[in-house]
Amino acid sequence: MTDKKKTTIVLFSGDYDKAMAAYIIANGAAAYDHEVTIFHTFWGLNALRKENQTPVKKGLMEKMFGKMMPRGTNQMGLSKMNYLGMGPKMIKKVMKKHNAMPLPQLVEMAQEQDINLIACTMTMDLLGLQKEELLDDIEYGGVAAYVGEAEEGNISLFI
Amino acid sequence: MTDKKKTTIVLFSGDYDKAMAAYIIANGAAAYDHEVTIFHTFWGLNALRKENQTPVKKGLMEKMFGKMMPRGTNQMGLSKMNYLGMGPKMIKKVMKKHNAMPLPQLVEMAQEQDINLIACTMTMDLLGLQKEELLDDIEYGGVAAYVGEAEEGNISLFI
Amino acid sequence: MTDKKKTTIVLFSGDYDKAMAAYIIANGAAAYDHEVTIFHTFWGLNALRKENQTPVKKGLMEKMFGKMMPRGTNQMGLSKMNYLGMGPKMIKKVMKKHNAMPLPQLVEMAQEQDINLIACTMTMDLLGLQKEELLDDIEYGGVAAYVGEAEEGNISLFI
Repeated sequence: MTDKKKTTIVLFSGDYDKAMAAYIIANGAAAYDHEVTIFHTFWGLNALRKENQTPVKKGLMEKMFGKMMPRGTNQMGLSKMNYLGMGPKMIKKVMKKHNAMPLPQLVEMAQEQDINLIACTMTMDLLGLQKEELLDDIEYGGVAAYVGEAEEGNISLFI
Repeated sequence: MTDKKKTTIVLFSGDYDKAMAAYIIANGAAAYDHEVTIFHTFWGLNALRKENQTPVKKGLMEKMFGKMMPRGTNQMGLSKMNYLGMGPKMIKKVMKKHNAMPLPQLVEMAQEQDINLIACTMTMDLLGLQKEELLDDIEYGGVAAYVGEAEEGNISLFI
Repeated sequence: MTDKKKTTIVLFSGDYDKAMAAYIIANGAAAYDHEVTIFHTFWGLNALRKENQTPVKKGLMEKMFGKMMPRGTNQMGLSKMNYLGMGPKMIKKVMKKHNAMPLPQLVEMAQEQDINLIACTMTMDLLGLQKEELLDDIEYGGVAAYVGEAEEGNISLFI
């Protein structure tokens, strides 16, 4: 156990705006020298999906989930005012105007800052996501891994 | 005050997937010997409703809320990809396939592990829910009970 | 650093019911002598908007966001069962019947209890909200301010 402060975030949501909030807080805490973990579960796993389709074998149900869910952060919708995809376009436009970092870069920055990105193996199973479809250099774990991290933490959030 | 670690979850959401996440984390933390409390408020109270209608006297507004809200975990919808109820069916099917525990059993398991299930009395009033309609062997409390638990805790989440 | 317990809430949501939960927990914690901070980001900023339109200069996109988002707590919708605005009316009616404090008063009470209301400057920029449009006597800050508060805290929530 280190003396570092710890921030542990459960990213459950697959919305662009919520994932953005999660990654901004995570990168901010890392900048203030926290040891940071983001545990991706359920729809939050989509933030870790590669943009291009990866050829893997799947059952019918898993194929359906795979098709219906966004492939990576860039395809995510908003939690509010999505308006069939117009909302995310507007947000991305104002983000560009104000020089705010878009979500795919926030994820990259998190990896550069050694933020611990964990994919929840139980929900990967449920949604039929396979390791080949997710970003490289991430970790895999279940609820035990999460509890182990979070119980020593200073900031713990469910997003 | 014990030396045990503590996890306190506010379950605000009435979605099947979010309630599942809450109960998986709660059961996981209990397995790692945490003292766990789930404080059910607003739509999260529906997780504690009995499946069968219980004859209680209600005003008109309370009756309407009662009818519109899911009666117990089995009737809950998904936060994403609900598709008029098809989503929950798909999720339950893949859960069965992967031997994941369905939500009603996760609640039972929580009770067996002595997880403290609290129903928020203030929001019960608002939504017109009465004790007879909720599961047996749960506790009742308000925001004071919640703050008292959470302030001593290691993990604190709002779901 | 004081010896007081600390509660720090990120209010991300712009829903009436979620903001109500945030402000009830915040006021409850303050009553139990916690030092409380609510950090308003994204749609949660709408809880701090003045009800009346304030004349400020804006770009087209910022004007659109301004028009589409609720102006203050009284215009917010519900996260569930909104039914084109009928839900909030029902909730407000039952709240009145049960003498529960409506959201605008919960915000006032928070200010009276010296709860630290912070508006996230980065998302104000994105959504085109200006200081003139928000309540008086609030503070402004970014993710650094949030991490600084939350890392010393006892209860930390994302709502």
